[in-house]
Amino acid sequence: MMVMNLFDIPGHLRDKEFFESLLPDRGILIERIISTGQASPTGFWYDQDRDELVMLLQGEAQLAWPEGRTLSMGRGDWLLIPAHERHRVERTSSDPPCIWLAIHGQLT
Amino acid sequence: MMVMNLFDIPGHLRDKEFFESLLPDRGILIERIISTGQASPTGFWYDQDRDELVMLLQGEAQLAWPEGRTLSMGRGDWLLIPAHERHRVERTSSDPPCIWLAIHGQLT
Repeated sequence: MMVMNLFDIPGHLRDKEFFESLLPDRGILIERIISTGQASPTGFWYDQDRDELVMLLQGEAQLAWPEGRTLSMGRGDWLLIPAHERHRVERTSSDPPCIWLAIHGQLT
Repeated sequence: MMVMNLFDIPGHLRDKEFFESLLPDRGILIERIISTGQASPTGFWYDQDRDELVMLLQGEAQLAWPEGRTLSMGRGDWLLIPAHERHRVERTSSDPPCIWLAIHGQLT
């Protein structure tokens, strides 16, 4: 039985964010994301069809919303972003890398 | 906006396992569990109606299956336990406490 580890950092990690699905998406997407300093492109807002429960397992990051609200997140912080709530990633730490776990689905 | 943290240990934690749902269960249950040395009762097997993706965020633990297979898990290890796959928790560490994140639902 192969067991995988949420804290493993792929050796080939470079300047791009790393995305992997823990399981095939059958209505619920469980996604691990590793960020190393990236942010959303200027002017870009996520506008997602599904609710997202986003958890930061390692690192530090900042999210932002169109009305000017921001949220600094550290290790272990989590929040729910309802479907179609526009938001962006303002900042992610590179040392240590941010390890996110996100659950996308009908959660509310 | 209240942000909660996966690594917070409730101050009232005693000899019982601690369970909390991150969100109301609307078909997907996202559950945080803190174990401090507990194991499943002798002869007890979980037999769950839903698939479970179980992740160990902190601590060390051992799972077991009826045919004699066991699995030692450490920080960050995760696995999928399909619905009705009988299993039990043989052992959990108390120092540090085990912090589990479990997602129960139709995942496969």
